[in-house]
Parts: sequence; structure tokens; C-alpha cells
Amino acid sequence: MKRLSHVDAHGRARMVDVAAKPVTQREALAVGTVHVTPAVLQMIVAGQIPKGDVLAVARVAGIMAAKKTPELIPLSHPLPITSVTIKFTPNESHSTITIAATVKVEGKTGVEMEALTAVSVAALTIYDMCKAVDKGMVISDVCLMKKTCGKSGTYVRASR
Amino acid sequence: MKRLSHVDAHGRARMVDVAAKPVTQREALAVGTVHVTPAVLQMIVAGQIPKGDVLAVARVAGIMAAKKTPELIPLSHPLPITSVTIKFTPNESHSTITIAATVKVEGKTGVEMEALTAVSVAALTIYDMCKAVDKGMVISDVCLMKKTCGKSGTYVRASR
Amino acid sequence: MKRLSHVDAHGRARMVDVAAKPVTQREALAVGTVHVTPAVLQMIVAGQIPKGDVLAVARVAGIMAAKKTPELIPLSHPLPITSVTIKFTPNESHSTITIAATVKVEGKTGVEMEALTAVSVAALTIYDMCKAVDKGMVISDVCLMKKTCGKSGTYVRASR
Amino acid sequence: MKRLSHVDAHGRARMVDVAAKPVTQREALAVGTVHVTPAVLQMIVAGQIPKGDVLAVARVAGIMAAKKTPELIPLSHPLPITSVTIKFTPNESHSTITIAATVKVEGKTGVEMEALTAVSVAALTIYDMCKAVDKGMVISDVCLMKKTCGKSGTYVRASR
Amino acid sequence: MKRLSHVDAHGRARMVDVAAKPVTQREALAVGTVHVTPAVLQMIVAGQIPKGDVLAVARVAGIMAAKKTPELIPLSHPLPITSVTIKFTPNESHSTITIAATVKVEGKTGVEMEALTAVSVAALTIYDMCKAVDKGMVISDVCLMKKTCGKSGTYVRASR
Amino acid sequence: MKRLSHVDAHGRARMVDVAAKPVTQREALAVGTVHVTPAVLQMIVAGQIPKGDVLAVARVAGIMAAKKTPELIPLSHPLPITSVTIKFTPNESHSTITIAATVKVEGKTGVEMEALTAVSVAALTIYDMCKAVDKGMVISDVCLMKKTCGKSGTYVRASR
Repeated sequence: MKRLSHVDAHGRARMVDVAAKPVTQREALAVGTVHVTPAVLQMIVAGQIPKGDVLAVARVAGIMAAKKTPELIPLSHPLPITSVTIKFTPNESHSTITIAATVKVEGKTGVEMEALTAVSVAALTIYDMCKAVDKGMVISDVCLMKKTCGKSGTYVRASR
Repeated sequence: MKRLSHVDAHGRARMVDVAAKPVTQREALAVGTVHVTPAVLQMIVAGQIPKGDVLAVARVAGIMAAKKTPELIPLSHPLPITSVTIKFTPNESHSTITIAATVKVEGKTGVEMEALTAVSVAALTIYDMCKAVDKGMVISDVCLMKKTCGKSGTYVRASR
Repeated sequence: MKRLSHVDAHGRARMVDVAAKPVTQREALAVGTVHVTPAVLQMIVAGQIPKGDVLAVARVAGIMAAKKTPELIPLSHPLPITSVTIKFTPNESHSTITIAATVKVEGKTGVEMEALTAVSVAALTIYDMCKAVDKGMVISDVCLMKKTCGKSGTYVRASR
Repeated sequence: MKRLSHVDAHGRARMVDVAAKPVTQREALAVGTVHVTPAVLQMIVAGQIPKGDVLAVARVAGIMAAKKTPELIPLSHPLPITSVTIKFTPNESHSTITIAATVKVEGKTGVEMEALTAVSVAALTIYDMCKAVDKGMVISDVCLMKKTCGKSGTYVRASR
Repeated sequence: MKRLSHVDAHGRARMVDVAAKPVTQREALAVGTVHVTPAVLQMIVAGQIPKGDVLAVARVAGIMAAKKTPELIPLSHPLPITSVTIKFTPNESHSTITIAATVKVEGKTGVEMEALTAVSVAALTIYDMCKAVDKGMVISDVCLMKKTCGKSGTYVRASR
Repeated sequence: MKRLSHVDAHGRARMVDVAAKPVTQREALAVGTVHVTPAVLQMIVAGQIPKGDVLAVARVAGIMAAKKTPELIPLSHPLPITSVTIKFTPNESHSTITIAATVKVEGKTGVEMEALTAVSVAALTIYDMCKAVDKGMVISDVCLMKKTCGKSGTYVRASR
């Protein structure tokens, strides 16, 4: 039966020992969605805002947050990540912006937390930049879509 | 008509000038929900895990993240927050844990980003601590419930 | 005769005691210049690069660095800055980009280090983003142009 | 033709993917110069200040800043640097202090940003420590002198 | 009867709400002692080492750590500290270096954690800088000597 | 004769060059003791406090501090640590809590500073969480117990 790895047999938190794990190429893809009003979406994507500045700031915030993951998630391992890319997909019919973050590393443990953190902080940054216009935005469906670790253990989400 | 405050007339990002705003008591409440499998919920709340350790780590992570908000959200202001509390409400029939974060400050600008960041990082930490058992968890409905600023401008979310 | 304030009578480093100083509105303006090749300037300003992305990243980096100043400059005071704006002025005839950062605070000590740090990190970010094309860029003339402290002690640089 | 590596084909910022690059011994040397008044130079180098304290603080600041580079430069990679040394060369006839920083790593990408950041923050720290005496100091000629990557691609600056 | 303030009635961690507390001048003095071998003490204080470099680095580390306290101590409040001074007293007959850190703030809560953190990190830095010669050093008697809060509540340690 | 490695032949601070050292499995164990009043010990271990919350927070603080070591100890190297565990042993007859931290890495240099930092910050966190009840707590006997580096150079402390 599976066990929570971040707590020991007595339920005490620990940083899991990954010393014996092999170094492999690993990659994770996470996504999330920000629900905005049509007016805000218009402003961000096609409107008064010169192209891309809200999203440019959110992208930088997400990339920097991926690097900050070990400072934020208490039991995560520090990892020398080798790549972060963040993509935004506005959807006018749903009035949403979907954020997808891909993170890579050559290391002993995966980067799903880095990808999820990048998505979350990019979403929070969109909130911050648009909250003067709308405080009702909602961040939803933040989840892991895929994770490969070069060796085995590929995880692919069935659906979202 | 409302304007995005974090970009100037040319659409360039800036940290908004709050020098002229009064110092008041301000408070924000944000919430979010982590959807887990019933088995994971059982483990966290009532199961093999000594009481509270997963949630204790997530609570610490959320409180520390509230303090880190100015480092994460590029255009947010550094604020000497005076209080952070985080509450977890497990719901067995929906198989969810709802996170509520309340942050206070005596300052010139609000703490909604601090409350939202605390919720998001607490949720990510729950994910991290349980991902060895279930990678399919989803973080949803992260939003601002209420915001007061001592003077005027109270915001209360209609529903969630 | 003037004394270095950051070292005591024995020459030992200290964080200067500003407890007795009044809280006033303070502002500082710093500038600096990045010398690039004409080809790089063209790429940044008018070229293949969608408008503003190199400068958008450098602007975010500068704003975030202003907030990080107390972590970087050992004896500086933590300050709740209230505003940061960064402006870039490309000069095609000199093949330069000049960076100007304005920082404000309501506090007991000035923000000249925050403004100078914002300029320096924005300049370093331009270097980073363009170094695949040109490693010979030079950052020069980083200096304080003006500093006001609401009460007295305005400093204005004679020339640059 | 050379391309800016930190933006994709659409001009969007990204952390470049270095996963496929080999791990090699890499080294970078950067320099910069602080222009001070003769009185300040005298104070720092030979004067009332017990030997080395201003420069000792600036040296520590520069070394620590090299380690902080991935937090400051948005698209830079986190790197386990193996060495940082910083040297100060006062020049009484020009009334300057020149700073040279050498950084090494065994990694997939170079450390020029770490060396340039170390120089810049050491320079800013000298400014901070001496600004009570002179606010007119100028930081100039911050540039990369040399970069080796163990394999190919050595860069040596023609002149300064 | 006194209660632990950092846990609520259910024993859950929280950042204590200090919103209603008055802003006063506050100060704390903490001390600690590093036990070294006579050879190491000789090296640090009077020996081959140019005067003060080990202690200069430890002093900078302690001052910077005081500023980092809210990032290290999970439930502590961020505070705009106004002064930090660190003093080292070598004692050749006991073969020790005693560290004393004084921190001031004008705020709603005290700075004892800042002073204790400054002492601890200065002590750890002495360890780090001397460990190539002696790994047996011991850090002891880290404690609060005095704390004033401008209003009432002065604490003075009976003895050490 | 042994030399302080963190200063060069002129006594100037530097980050030691470890580029030529081999990558090996390394481990360090450090300990320290917090002296509390019997009433506080009772509260923490068996008392009004739901099981483990003070220690749960201190454990998280210690683990996170191990990761922050390169930011705190100026000349230490950034290291991708692979494991941190922290154990608390209350002793009712001495009225103490002893903290033991074990840190592992696969790297070019050891993790004794990470283990000592984890112990110190966990101890400071216990102080912070209990100081409303007792300000007289003392942190003592922080030292390295053991260090292995996979190759040679095992250090084991004779006694404590």
C-alpha cells in the first residue's frame, strides 16, 4: 500500500532521502485557469493594454517562482532546474486564461512542484495586476498534466 | 471607467504609488479548495498520520508564504503584516480540504495578495505531501472572500 | 568633518541607528546606462523582438530588486517602499539604453540604495537577455541624480 | 544570424533549455570601477577606517550576491557555484576602486551573470558605506573580461 | 496562567495578532558564546589573520540574519528594524568568543528573535570560517539578556 | 600546519574553490539543546498543547533553514541537499529538549553547516513559540557530532 513519503513512520515531517535515486532527465507539465470578467480579458488580450504586458509580468513571476519552490514548499528538494517555459491561452468564450508551465531538470527527483508553483504564482500575478478592475477573479483547476522522469514512472493525467 | 492600476498610461508595469494613501487597519480573507481522493483525505484527517502533521506543515508553509508575497508577486508592496491565521476544513462527502487564510496589516495598501498567496502555497504543500499517494489532486476555487480597509471600500464576495 | 556612518568609532560595521529620525516622505532617482552594439539595440527596440519584452523583463527585475535591497546591501535598513517606477530611454546615436529608477518611501531613512539597486539589476538583466548576441556590453554611469527627504536635505546631482 | 536566446520565436521570455548541454568546468571574470572623491578613497584605503572594513563588507556582499543571482536575474539558471573571489584595486591617481570578481562552476551553463552581479553589488555596497561622506560616487565600466567553459567557447574581452 | 501565544486554543500555529498593540521604541540584547581551541582563538584575534576579517564576516552575517528573521522563524512578524550592532569579546583564559547583538525597532512587537538570530548566525559563521582548523567548536549559552519596549514590560535576565 | 580555508594568504574572505574536489555522498549530524523551565517542557511535550505542534513548527523551520544555509553563512557553497531529518528528544529530568539534525548531499563539499544551521533555527523557533511563557530559555551545546564524506575524512566527536 502507498504511503505518504514526506512523513516518517511516526508521522513526523521530513525531507525524503533521495540520495540513492539516479540522476535522470525529468520534466513536468502543470496547468491552471484564471476566470476573469470579459472586460478584464479584453483589457489583457486585445485592449487598451499594450500587447502582453500583464502576461509578460505574470510569465516572469511564474519563472522566478519555479526557482523559489524550495523556499516555499517546506519539504521539497533544491533542484538545479534547466528550463522553464510558461504559455498563456486566453479563451474568450469561457472568459478564462489558461496557464501551462513546463519545467525540466537533470536530477534525482521530479519537478512537479516547480511546475505547479509556477502556474499558481503566474495566476496570482494576473490577479494582482487586474484586481483594481475586478476582485472576483477565481483560480481553478490547478493540476499536474504530465510528468516524465526519463526512466520509468511517466504520469499522464487522464483528463482535466 | 476602471483602469488596471499596475500599468501606466503606456501599459508599462510599475509598482503603484501608495505614498498618499492613509495608514489604516486592513484585513483580507481568501479561500481555496484541494480536491483529493477519499483515501488521501482519510490519511490526512483521521488515518495513519498522527493528528495534524500534514496540515501543520501546510499551515506553516502558508503563513511563511504570506510574508514572502512581495518577493513572489512582482508589483506588490512590502507590508509589515500583523497577523496570519489559516484554517483547514475537511469535507468527507466532497472529498476536499478547504483552506481559509486571514491576514491583517496596518498599512497603506491591502493584504488580499498575502491572503491569496497563503492559500495557494498551503494548497501546494498539501499536494507535495500527498503526491506519493495521489498525483491527481486539483486545487480550485482560489478567490478573495472579503477585504476591509478600515475606512471605506469593504469588498464582500457575493457567493462562491 | 563628515564620517562614514556605517562604521563605528573603531571602524566596525554596523547598521546605523535611525530610531530617532522622523518618518518623512522620501524619494530617490538613480540612473545608469547600458552600452550595446547597434544590432542589439535594434533588436531590443524596433526589431524582431515583439515590442518591449526584453525591457518588460528588465523592468520587472529592477522593481523586484528594489524590494530586495535590504538582502543585498548588508547594512541597509528594511523599508516599506511605496512606489517604484523604471523608465528606459534608448539612444540610437550613442547605441545605449539609459535606465532611470524612481523609488519612494514614507520612512526614517532614504531610498537611494533601492533606486541604485533597481538600476543595476535592470541593467544586468538587459545584459543577460542579450548576451547570446553580444558579450561586450558595458554598464556605466550608475549614479544618484536626486534625493529628497521631505524635510531638508535634498540632494541634486550637478551634472552627469 | 545570432538570436536572443531568452525569448522564443514569438518574443516571449523563457528560461533557456540547457538540459542537453554538457556539464563542464566554467569560469567567468567580470570587473567594474567605483569613482570616489580622493577624501573617500583615503578614508577607505589608508585612513581613519581600520584596515579593510569597508572593503571587507563589500567583499562579503559581492560573494553573497553571486549566490543570489538566480533570484535577481529573472531568466538565469540556478547553479551550484564552486568558488567566488573578489579583489579590490584602489587607484589613487584616478581616485577609483576597481572590483574584479571571479566565479567558477561545474555546470551546464556559464557564470558570467554571477560574476557581473558580484561586481555590481560589491560596488553598490561601497556606495552605501561611503554615501554619508559623498553622494556623488559613480559606478562605471561594469563588464565581462573573460569566460571559459572548459570545452570551447572561451570569450576574452579585447580591451576595456 | 500564561499561555503559549503562537498556538490558538486548539493548539494550532498562528502568527499572533498584534494589530491592536501600540507602536513603541523597542530594543533587545542577546548574547552567546563560541568555544574554540586556543590555537583558533589565537588565529582569529591576534594571529596570522589580518585584523578582524573572520569577525568582520561574522558581523556582517549576523546583521544580515537579523533582517532575515521573519524568513527563518515561521511565526515571527516582519519588522522594519532601525539598528543592529554586534560586538565580539574574545576571552583568552576561557578560550571563547562572546557575541552580543543589540537590535532596535519602532514597532508593535519586540525584536528578541532578531537579536537571538543575529547571535546564532554570527556564531555559525565563526564556526564555518574556522572549521578547517577545528571541527570541535561548540556554541553555547545563547540567550536573551534584556528587552525593553518603551512602555512597560522590560525584561532583564538575572544572570547568565 | 592547518590553515583557515575561508581566507586567502592575505586574510581576505573568499568562497573556497572546491571545483577540483570529487562528488561523493556526504552526511553530517549536528545537535544542540534548549534549556526550558519544567512548566514549558510540560506544555510542549505532554500538556495543553495538542501533540507536537510546537515541535512540528520547529521541525519545519529547521528543515527550511538547512536549505537556506548558503544565504545565511556568507562563504558557504550552495548545495543540492538530498535529505534532512530532525529529531527532538525531551528530557524531563534535565528539563531540556535536545535537537538532532541529519543532512545528506551528493556533492563536492560537506553539509556540516546545513546541519548546524538546522539545529540552531529549530532551537530559535522553540524559543519563539514559548517565549510568551518563559524568556529565560537558553540554547547550548550546539556542535557537530559526526561527518562522513564517502571517501575518507570521517569526523566523529569524541564526546559532548
